[in-house]
Amino acid sequence: MSKRVNIGNLLSSISIDCVVFGFKEGRLHVLLLKWKGIDKWALPSGFIQKEENLNNAAVRILQTRTGVSLPFLDQLYTFGDNDRKHSKEIIDSFSNEVLSEDLKDWIMQRFISTAYISLVKIDECNIAPDHLSDACKWIAIDEVPDLILDHNLMIEKGIEKLRHELNYLPIGLNILDQKFTMKDLQQLYESILARPLDRGNFQKKMLKLGFLDRHEKKLNCGAHKAPYLYSINTVKYNQILSQGIGFIN
Amino acid sequence: MSKRVNIGNLLSSISIDCVVFGFKEGRLHVLLLKWKGIDKWALPSGFIQKEENLNNAAVRILQTRTGVSLPFLDQLYTFGDNDRKHSKEIIDSFSNEVLSEDLKDWIMQRFISTAYISLVKIDECNIAPDHLSDACKWIAIDEVPDLILDHNLMIEKGIEKLRHELNYLPIGLNILDQKFTMKDLQQLYESILARPLDRGNFQKKMLKLGFLDRHEKKLNCGAHKAPYLYSINTVKYNQILSQGIGFIN
Repeated sequence: MSKRVNIGNLLSSISIDCVVFGFKEGRLHVLLLKWKGIDKWALPSGFIQKEENLNNAAVRILQTRTGVSLPFLDQLYTFGDNDRKHSKEIIDSFSNEVLSEDLKDWIMQRFISTAYISLVKIDECNIAPDHLSDACKWIAIDEVPDLILDHNLMIEKGIEKLRHELNYLPIGLNILDQKFTMKDLQQLYESILARPLDRGNFQKKMLKLGFLDRHEKKLNCGAHKAPYLYSINTVKYNQILSQGIGFIN
Repeated sequence: MSKRVNIGNLLSSISIDCVVFGFKEGRLHVLLLKWKGIDKWALPSGFIQKEENLNNAAVRILQTRTGVSLPFLDQLYTFGDNDRKHSKEIIDSFSNEVLSEDLKDWIMQRFISTAYISLVKIDECNIAPDHLSDACKWIAIDEVPDLILDHNLMIEKGIEKLRHELNYLPIGLNILDQKFTMKDLQQLYESILARPLDRGNFQKKMLKLGFLDRHEKKLNCGAHKAPYLYSINTVKYNQILSQGIGFIN
C-alpha cells in the first residue's frame, strides 16, 4: 500500500486487516495507525501479492505497516459487505506524494477483507508507523475513535472471539510475565470479559485446570499478604490447548 | 458459474465453497456434486457478484448449485494458499456447451476461497444437481473421494470446527427429530467426534446442561426397556447458545 507498490502485482478485490490486541495497565488495547496528514485512524491493512499465501500476507502486512513481527496470526472473519468501500473524500485527502493517483483509484474499488487477530505482549513489540501513517499506537479498547470502513466492527468481532475462547481455552497466558500472581491472571480475564469475576471462584477454577505451577511468594509485599507467584506448566497447557476445556472431555 | 454467467459482473480472485453436513443412519455426511461429464467430485462452489454481499452469495450459490435453501451459512475459514489453482486438464475436459472458453480461462486464475459451513436436516433438503453437475449426493464422511483443489481439506477443517464446538455448545440439535432419545443424541455426538462416548457419563452431562425436557417413554419398545423421549427447551437452549458452556460462566 505504498506509492512504490506495483498494482499489477496485487490480487484485486481482496485485502487484509490486522486486529492486534495487547494488555497494558490492566486494560485491553488494540494497535492502530493514524493515516498520514489525515485525521483518521485505522487498523493495519494491506493487499495480497499475486504469488503470496493469504496467511503469509497478514504477517508481512502487519510487519511492514507497524514493525510488529509475529510468526503467524489467526483468522478472525472475512468481511464482505457489498458497501464496504472507502470514502472518496478521505482517500483524495492523501497527498499525491503519499498515495499516487493510480493507487487512489485502485483503493476505491470494493474489497472483501480477511481480518486476522492476535493477542501479543506489548513490551515485546517495537512499533513504528510506516510511510503512510503519522502514528502507530496502542489504544485502550474503550477509547478507540471512529475508524475507517468497518474497522470498529472488526475490533468488536475480535473481542467477541477472545471472550468466546476464554470459555474453553486458557488463552492469552503467553502475554503475562513468566511469573505472575492470580490477580494478574484475573485482571487479564476481566479486561477481556469487561466484567468483574469472583476472586475465590476464579482461583478455584484456574487451579483445577492444572496448568499452573505455584512458586515462592512474591517479595516486596508485607509477608502476611504476599501473594503466590505462578507460572505456566507448558506440557499441561499444550494438552489443554489441544483438547479444549470441554464439557465432553 | 454457468455458461450464461457474465464474467464482467463477478468479483475476481475470490470464490465461495459450501461445506454442508447432514446426519443420516447414525453417520455424518457431506453434500457433494459430481462435475458434468468428468469423473471428479467437489463441494458446491461459485463466485461473488460485484454488488453482492459475501454471506448472501454463499446462500445463493448453495441454492443454485444444489437446490438446498438455507437462511444463512456460517463462515468456516478463508483458504488462500497461493497454489490453489485448478488443474487445466480437468477444466479443459468440460465440454464447451457446459463451460465456455472464456469461463474456462477465468476459472484458471488464482482464487482465494471463503468456505462456509452448515449442519442440516437431510430429510428437509430437496437436492438436485445444477447444469454443471451430473449428480448431487450426500456422502458419508469416511467415504468422501479425492476432491478437486483443497476441498478435502475444507471438509476436514469443517469437521474440526464441529468437534471443537461440541465442547462448548449443544450444536446440531436442530437436525434431530423434534422428540428424540438420549441414544439418538449420543449417536449424533459420536458421529461428529468419531469415537464412542460413555453412555452414563454422556447422559449425566447432557441433563446437567438443563436444556432437555423429558417426555413420556418411547412406544413400540418392550415397556421395561423403553427409553425416554426428550425435546429441546428453546429458552434454555438459546441461553446456553449465547453464553457457551464455558468454564468461566
